[in-house]
Amino acid sequence: MNAEAISPAELIVRFGGSARASLATVANGIGFFAVTPQAPYDGTLSTAEQAGQLFAKAETRLQEIGSEKGAILFAMILLRDIADVADFNVVWDGWVADVVPPARACFEATLANPDLKVELIILARCADA
Amino acid sequence: MNAEAISPAELIVRFGGSARASLATVANGIGFFAVTPQAPYDGTLSTAEQAGQLFAKAETRLQEIGSEKGAILFAMILLRDIADVADFNVVWDGWVADVVPPARACFEATLANPDLKVELIILARCADA
Amino acid sequence: MNAEAISPAELIVRFGGSARASLATVANGIGFFAVTPQAPYDGTLSTAEQAGQLFAKAETRLQEIGSEKGAILFAMILLRDIADVADFNVVWDGWVADVVPPARACFEATLANPDLKVELIILARCADA
Repeated sequence: MNAEAISPAELIVRFGGSARASLATVANGIGFFAVTPQAPYDGTLSTAEQAGQLFAKAETRLQEIGSEKGAILFAMILLRDIADVADFNVVWDGWVADVVPPARACFEATLANPDLKVELIILARCADA
Repeated sequence: MNAEAISPAELIVRFGGSARASLATVANGIGFFAVTPQAPYDGTLSTAEQAGQLFAKAETRLQEIGSEKGAILFAMILLRDIADVADFNVVWDGWVADVVPPARACFEATLANPDLKVELIILARCADA
Repeated sequence: MNAEAISPAELIVRFGGSARASLATVANGIGFFAVTPQAPYDGTLSTAEQAGQLFAKAETRLQEIGSEKGAILFAMILLRDIADVADFNVVWDGWVADVVPPARACFEATLANPDLKVELIILARCADA
């Protein structure tokens, strides 16, 4: 096989999504995705409650891409209100209690939807093909 | 060849840049770069207009590093004013209309230059050497 | 060896950390970590002074994971006050003066601790096993 005949785009496996964005991409054994709470977002839920929804979605997404909760390499945690970080961490700590947790960073950011209080960007190791 | 004799720094291909930063780096078939509108930044342009400039630069950068628009793995979209996200998305949707789009996340962030309204951080699959 | 018998989680090397987070993860020759100034954070220090502490910690972390300052692929620089970017850059420029610098992006973000003025997210090439 002539490797030069394969375009970089063909080396990516994509999951779900729309004309605007894929839900996740995988290349070279690493998966890339952002994950939010259950849509439509419910602004009356607390950050902790939205985080619980988000983690459930993240587990499904990880499974779809051949990864798992314990194989997250890095998590960027974006909180609408950084004052909620302690509440978020309670839910996070419960979620990662049964795995070796990833490296992570957390910061405050205004997100694209006013009802969205937390979003994660996740890089994860996937199973080798 | 003794693999131990090769330092990690030697395993990176770098593109352009200055003493402060490379324009892009590539290792293990994945490219990493940030991209902004055409410099010097023109604060009188709209976010959508700056995005158009940015996408033109991004395509050139992707080509330089052996990648392409359809091989973006993940795009982090930083907008100075999240209220401009719908306007940004119109330009984005046009840009990715002819490819399978990457995974992405979007949030509001004050950028390093007051005339800068949008910046992207891009991870992309590059052609294998 | 049956590759299917190896879970993705087993393909990650982790460094340090707590039940909440690893200090760093490495997979496929790429390391992922966030780094902050010396803890407990001292809010009376300037951003430049905190950056100096952070770079010292980063060099130790890079060495631990089999990488080095010259093997950083991408640095995301989060500043509590973007007005400090020029001061930060002076320290940064000194730090990378003896290597080919990575690609980078810089933006303002409120961080999880009120005494924390700067945090970096680093992706780095590590030595092959």
